[in-house]
Amino acid sequence: MSRRVITLTTDFGMGSPYVAEMKGVILSICPEIVIVDISHQVAPQDVRQAALILDQAAWRFPDGTIHICVVDPGVGTERRIVFVQLDRQSFIAPDNGVLSRLMGRGELCRALVLTQQNLWRHPVSNTFHGRDIMAPVAARVATGQPPERLGPATDRLVMLDWPEPEVRGAEIDGQVLTVDSFGNLITNIGHDLVDRLGSSATICVRCAGHTIRGVVGTYGQRDPGTLVALIGSSGLLEMAVVQGHAAQRLRVEAGAAVTVSCV
Amino acid sequence: MSRRVITLTTDFGMGSPYVAEMKGVILSICPEIVIVDISHQVAPQDVRQAALILDQAAWRFPDGTIHICVVDPGVGTERRIVFVQLDRQSFIAPDNGVLSRLMGRGELCRALVLTQQNLWRHPVSNTFHGRDIMAPVAARVATGQPPERLGPATDRLVMLDWPEPEVRGAEIDGQVLTVDSFGNLITNIGHDLVDRLGSSATICVRCAGHTIRGVVGTYGQRDPGTLVALIGSSGLLEMAVVQGHAAQRLRVEAGAAVTVSCV
Amino acid sequence: MSRRVITLTTDFGMGSPYVAEMKGVILSICPEIVIVDISHQVAPQDVRQAALILDQAAWRFPDGTIHICVVDPGVGTERRIVFVQLDRQSFIAPDNGVLSRLMGRGELCRALVLTQQNLWRHPVSNTFHGRDIMAPVAARVATGQPPERLGPATDRLVMLDWPEPEVRGAEIDGQVLTVDSFGNLITNIGHDLVDRLGSSATICVRCAGHTIRGVVGTYGQRDPGTLVALIGSSGLLEMAVVQGHAAQRLRVEAGAAVTVSCV
Repeated sequence: MSRRVITLTTDFGMGSPYVAEMKGVILSICPEIVIVDISHQVAPQDVRQAALILDQAAWRFPDGTIHICVVDPGVGTERRIVFVQLDRQSFIAPDNGVLSRLMGRGELCRALVLTQQNLWRHPVSNTFHGRDIMAPVAARVATGQPPERLGPATDRLVMLDWPEPEVRGAEIDGQVLTVDSFGNLITNIGHDLVDRLGSSATICVRCAGHTIRGVVGTYGQRDPGTLVALIGSSGLLEMAVVQGHAAQRLRVEAGAAVTVSCV
Repeated sequence: MSRRVITLTTDFGMGSPYVAEMKGVILSICPEIVIVDISHQVAPQDVRQAALILDQAAWRFPDGTIHICVVDPGVGTERRIVFVQLDRQSFIAPDNGVLSRLMGRGELCRALVLTQQNLWRHPVSNTFHGRDIMAPVAARVATGQPPERLGPATDRLVMLDWPEPEVRGAEIDGQVLTVDSFGNLITNIGHDLVDRLGSSATICVRCAGHTIRGVVGTYGQRDPGTLVALIGSSGLLEMAVVQGHAAQRLRVEAGAAVTVSCV
Repeated sequence: MSRRVITLTTDFGMGSPYVAEMKGVILSICPEIVIVDISHQVAPQDVRQAALILDQAAWRFPDGTIHICVVDPGVGTERRIVFVQLDRQSFIAPDNGVLSRLMGRGELCRALVLTQQNLWRHPVSNTFHGRDIMAPVAARVATGQPPERLGPATDRLVMLDWPEPEVRGAEIDGQVLTVDSFGNLITNIGHDLVDRLGSSATICVRCAGHTIRGVVGTYGQRDPGTLVALIGSSGLLEMAVVQGHAAQRLRVEAGAAVTVSCV
C-alpha cells in the first residue's frame, strides 16, 4: 500500500502548538503517514469558511486521503463527530455543517458517528477532540482500521444553507462566496451559467455599485489596477483587481450581492 | 527502523527562508526524515514562550523524536548548544533556558554540550547555528549517530524561573502562563489543585478585576460572549470567552495574577 | 532511488487553499514525494522578493530537488513557463525574471520551455498554472520523466536587473537587498568586499543618516537595542538592532542606499 495522506484544516492559527499536538498523535500511531496542512487560518469558529476551503482543496488529493477538520465551537457538548466518505475521499469532523458544502460533490459511500472509544486517545479532554478523537481515529483508519468499526451509521448530517444563484431570464442573481488571499471576490456563479448567458464580451457583472463589462480570460489581459471579471481556477465567476485587492477596492465581503446580465 | 521525526520551533516567522534553509540541510543528510513545524511564530527572542510551546507539544511525538529549538539571541557568543534526552524525546537547543520548562517532566537520560565539529556544516556562520550546527547534528542523530559522540556531558543547564502556584488555605495564587491563539488565558494552576479546592460549581476564579463563578466542562456550555473558567486540554485552569477573545476582553497578558478560591 | 523533494515558493499567503491544491496534485501523482514549503508569504506579485528568497534557500536542498515558484502576475498570457537546471537543482517557474537571481550561481545545465501538454493537468485553468502545469510537471520529473521531453530548449530567459555594489577607492556603494523577518537589513555587499576594505574595527557603515562604526561578529556582542553591522548567514553585510527591528528603527526598506568605508 502506498503512503496514506491525512490533511488538517483548523482555526488554530499558524504556529499554534495545538496543530503540532495533533501531528504528534498521528505520527505516534504511524510515522509513515503524510500530513498536509490545508489551512489553520480559518477565522475562529467560522464553520462556513472552513467548509469552503475544504471543498476547494479536498478533491485534489489522492484517493484514500483522510481530511480532518477541527473548527469546533461545540467541542465537548452533545454535538457528534462524524466520519464521512464521499467517492474516495474521507472526512472526519464535528457534525456542525462543516462538511455540508461537500455533499453532492461525490457519491456518499459512508456516514458514521464516532463512538468506538477504544480507538481514541485517553484521557479524552473536554476541549480538544481534534487531538484526542479525530487525530487518532484518522491515523488508525489510514493504517488499516476498517471504518465501519468506528461507530454506527447515520443518515442525517447537519446541513448549512448554501445559496444557489438564481437565473431570471437574462439575469443571474448570485453572491460573493469568499474572498481569497489576493482579495479576489469568488462568487457562487458557475462558468456554465455565465456561458449560457452570452459571449464573454457581452457579459456585464455588477457588485456594490460597480459595473464590469466583459469577462476576460485572465488577470494579465488588463492593466494593473483594472477591475475585471473572469472565471477562476475553481470554475466560478470572480471579480479581481489586476495586481490589486478587489475586496478592499469594492469594500465588499462574503455575502455581497452580484448580478450578471448580458448587454 | 521506522522513519525518524525532527521538529522545529523557532522565532523566524512563517515563510522565512531561514526555516527552509534548515529543512534543506536536514533533507540533504537524509531525505527520509519527517520534519514537523511546531511553531515559527515565537515572538523574536522570547525564550519563555518557546519553552512553553515546546513543553505543550513535544510530549505528543513518537519515541525517538528530536526537537530542535532555535530561539537564540546569544547565537555566536559563548553560550553553549546542548543535546538533552528526557525519556524518549531528545532536544537540541541553545543552553539559554529554553529547555528548562521540560525538566522534571521526564527522566533526564542525557545532557551533552555540542562540541564535535566534524558533525557540523562548514563554514559555520556566526549568526545561524540552527542551520550550521543544530540541523546537521539532529539529522545525524536521526540517522544513527550515537549521541554520546556529540560532545562532553554536562550536569548543569541554564534554568529559568517558572513560578509555581501557591496554595494558602482555601485559596490558590497563580498566574497567566500564556495566551493561546484563541485568546484563551492559560494559567499555571493544574486541575488537581482546583479539584482539591472544591466541586466545580463552588470554585471562584479572579483575574484583572473579573470574577468567574464555577468551572464549566467546555466552552459550548455557555452562551457566546460569556467569560468562563475551565480545565484546558493540557490539564491547566484557563479563562476563555465563549467564541470570543479573553485576553482582549480582560486586557491581560502572560504574568497576570490569578486567584482561585471556593465559595 | 531516494525520496525526491519538491519545494514551493508562492505569493498565495499562508493557509491558502491554493497551496493545498498544488500539494494534492503532486501527491496524487506520487505520495512518496517530500513537499517542503519555502515561503508562501511573498508579497503579492513581488517577483524580486521571490527571487531573493529562492536564491537564499534553494542551494541548501539535496541534489535533484525541484523548486516550483508561483509568483505569476502574467498567468494565462503569452509569458512562458520554464524548467531550468542549475548544477543539481531544478526550477519550474514563469519566465518573468523570478529565476534571474539564481543565474550564475550554478552551471546552467538545461533551460526548457514547458509545452508538452500531455504532462499537464486538464482542463488547464487560465489563472492557476501552478496547479495545472507546474505541479504535475514537477511531480512527473521527480518520478522519472526525463526533463528533455518537457518541451524545447531555450537560450534566453527574462533577466531582472540586480544592482551590484560599486567599489570606488576606499568606499563601497551598495543597497539594502531585503529585510528579513527580524527586521535585519540585508545588503548586496558581500563579506569579501568588506574584508578587503580593512579590519572589522575600522569599517564604517552608513545608511539613512545612521553611522555604524565597526563590524561585530554576532548580535550578542552588543547590548540589546544597539544598532550593529555584521556579516549575516548568507555572507552578506547586514545591519541589525540587537533584539530589535532595524528596518523600523531606521525607517528603511529594500533599495535604500548603503555606504561602507574605512576610517
